[in-house]
Amino acid sequence: MNMTEMAVKAKEASIKLSAMSGEMKNKALEMIAVKLDERKNEIIKANEEDIRRSESENLGAPLLKRLKFDEAKIKDVIAGIKSLIGLEEPVGKTVLSTELDEGLELYRVTCPIGVIGIIFESRPDALVQISTLCLKSGNSVLLKGGSEARETNKILTSIINDASIQAGMPEGWIYQVETRSDVSEMLKMDGYIDLLIPRGSNEFVRHIMDNSRIPVMGHADGICHCYVDDAADVDMAIKVVADSKTQYVAVCNAAETLLVNAKIADKLLPLLKEELDKKNVELIGCEMTQQIIKVTPATKEDWSTEYLDYILSIKVVEDMDEAIVHINKYGSGHTDVIITNDKAKAAEFMNLVDAGNVFWNCSTRFSDGFRYGFGAEVGISTSKLHARGPVGLEGLLIYKYKLLGAGHTVEEYSSKVRTFKHNKMNKDFKV
Amino acid sequence: MNMTEMAVKAKEASIKLSAMSGEMKNKALEMIAVKLDERKNEIIKANEEDIRRSESENLGAPLLKRLKFDEAKIKDVIAGIKSLIGLEEPVGKTVLSTELDEGLELYRVTCPIGVIGIIFESRPDALVQISTLCLKSGNSVLLKGGSEARETNKILTSIINDASIQAGMPEGWIYQVETRSDVSEMLKMDGYIDLLIPRGSNEFVRHIMDNSRIPVMGHADGICHCYVDDAADVDMAIKVVADSKTQYVAVCNAAETLLVNAKIADKLLPLLKEELDKKNVELIGCEMTQQIIKVTPATKEDWSTEYLDYILSIKVVEDMDEAIVHINKYGSGHTDVIITNDKAKAAEFMNLVDAGNVFWNCSTRFSDGFRYGFGAEVGISTSKLHARGPVGLEGLLIYKYKLLGAGHTVEEYSSKVRTFKHNKMNKDFKV
Repeated sequence: MNMTEMAVKAKEASIKLSAMSGEMKNKALEMIAVKLDERKNEIIKANEEDIRRSESENLGAPLLKRLKFDEAKIKDVIAGIKSLIGLEEPVGKTVLSTELDEGLELYRVTCPIGVIGIIFESRPDALVQISTLCLKSGNSVLLKGGSEARETNKILTSIINDASIQAGMPEGWIYQVETRSDVSEMLKMDGYIDLLIPRGSNEFVRHIMDNSRIPVMGHADGICHCYVDDAADVDMAIKVVADSKTQYVAVCNAAETLLVNAKIADKLLPLLKEELDKKNVELIGCEMTQQIIKVTPATKEDWSTEYLDYILSIKVVEDMDEAIVHINKYGSGHTDVIITNDKAKAAEFMNLVDAGNVFWNCSTRFSDGFRYGFGAEVGISTSKLHARGPVGLEGLLIYKYKLLGAGHTVEEYSSKVRTFKHNKMNKDFKV
Repeated sequence: MNMTEMAVKAKEASIKLSAMSGEMKNKALEMIAVKLDERKNEIIKANEEDIRRSESENLGAPLLKRLKFDEAKIKDVIAGIKSLIGLEEPVGKTVLSTELDEGLELYRVTCPIGVIGIIFESRPDALVQISTLCLKSGNSVLLKGGSEARETNKILTSIINDASIQAGMPEGWIYQVETRSDVSEMLKMDGYIDLLIPRGSNEFVRHIMDNSRIPVMGHADGICHCYVDDAADVDMAIKVVADSKTQYVAVCNAAETLLVNAKIADKLLPLLKEELDKKNVELIGCEMTQQIIKVTPATKEDWSTEYLDYILSIKVVEDMDEAIVHINKYGSGHTDVIITNDKAKAAEFMNLVDAGNVFWNCSTRFSDGFRYGFGAEVGISTSKLHARGPVGLEGLLIYKYKLLGAGHTVEEYSSKVRTFKHNKMNKDFKV
């Protein structure tokens, strides 16, 4: 089946899937969980094949680690499906209800978006997570995983497909996209695919964004800042900055730049250096930083670089305003933190920093769907529309307006025979 | 000032505007209303100049009508501003609040999107409406109106600018974009402009969508359908179809195609023709329609044509399923209606038709922000993300996550020293 055929079928299936009851979808999710467990030996075997091949192709250790899909990982994804089943049915919720006039009732009701294209690297657990999120939210999904995980992805897709169709889901709601040329095709299918979710490196995400008219949910850069205010507790500042930088360096919500208020820089920087030296963090600093501690001199590029490594750029700022201007200029709208004991300044910082996540006195690393309690995460969005920050199930939903009348015409209102009432109803949609 | 300078200033202003209180913004709106009234003679004079020039350039009558901005129109836009002042402050609303752990509180709080680019044809009232909507929602706005209204737009922008700045709004929150080459520049400024809202003809909107990476809210086509089911009341069907087609033909929510269940076609079509003949509606029909009434034979192109005129295409379908497939194939996701007395079929139609507005037994023409009771309308969106259907004030908003801690680090949770509570709080954000 070629890409166009898949997209057409997925679109057709998405209409049927949008009308499936929560009960039916939960049954399908249960069946998927059962089958993943029943066929775990096949999955592990396929994954071992991927790992053997990738090792022979000299895939790096971090990627090999992410590729691994063993019994523990299978258990994790099954637990994830169980918790997804427990979540409230997201489709068909009445969000607004208004009596426009007697017998003319307007409802805004949640519904799936349609067809979602997911393009991700390595991690096979992402395949299970995202496809089950799509199923729960009633969306068809076209999946393209990294070629290093092809055997694992193939068997996982086949299990999810077979189990869900056996449980009554419409054929065509899930497809695996195999080749790179299919991906190029996919990016052009704005008539069939409603949303792309790329998960991977900056370059990878930017490539997708630059080469498709389909809306993209996600983020390219994650240039997160910590600003240590003069009214900060120094111990707390060191603790939060160290965690933001070093708790896990290879991820988008790790801090890349530290901004320090000039009034506290002399006191903070030597102590912070002591702490970060323990973790072998390379420090890169502005001229004022260089006068206080030994650092690599910063260039302008440093302020817009996502190191994803044990490297931190440091800039001393005159005041909070300068910090905010810096963040709004060089940041990526991901996650920015202020450390201060001054409530008013914290409030102002959180108002004026234009990012999806603005934190006070805690680590940038909290910026995550699981930590936020969303149960499952589609990804983190730095877009200014639809969904921002960590995106849970509701990022896969939109709404439609349903209007119920009894032969009502607009002419009656234009000619003032009737007038609108516009009474709020607080009533769930029902025909 | 060139386009880039304007965009940079507008972005800066948007940050300040995002933190303005509802009270301050309402004062600015009041001041705008006062000044529009005080300077109405200047506005009318400028508009007369536009009309004189446009007449001499042979602008068509419908466009001239839309261009006219007289005392009555000024009164209308002032009334619009007054009702906008009365609306609840949309920025800073807490939408979600979760205690992640002791002393670690997460809030999702509404905020403005940032900088909105509005490109519209003719109607000067749209300028006032949209710029005041942007002010209320805390967004900067770059406005490009039709050149036929340039004098009217110029004085309106200047009044809105002066009055709002006098009332304390940040300079640069509103700019008028003058030339076509500025518009081309504007479409490229995805680093500064967060959303484009084009209001005008199909070709115009499609041109914007095709030539910018900035997200676009709006619609190109409005191909709306009425499906008359075999279980319909014939009188009601005729009334609703006639209103959908003829109440105002030049608008996106007018019906373009009628789908008729074969079981009722013999009875309905002759009576409908009688009614539509009164309004000189040209009927274009499929082969089966041609066997029942005298119509122009339809070609395949008719099903995807938005006539915006006294023309209706008609297709006889075997059953509701065929109607739904036709609508999902040829429709534009705008507004589609079923006329039936069968509740179950109405519910199914509204579930399976993939459109922003799905109606039962009432006219397509109800698909409108004012009729929906939204008070003010940004436009009608056929997108599947962010906002769909008629878009009110909330289409100009997004949210950010604010997380308040007391030195919390992720390492404590990774190492299981602490565990997340994820307790729902129902508490408004406050530091």
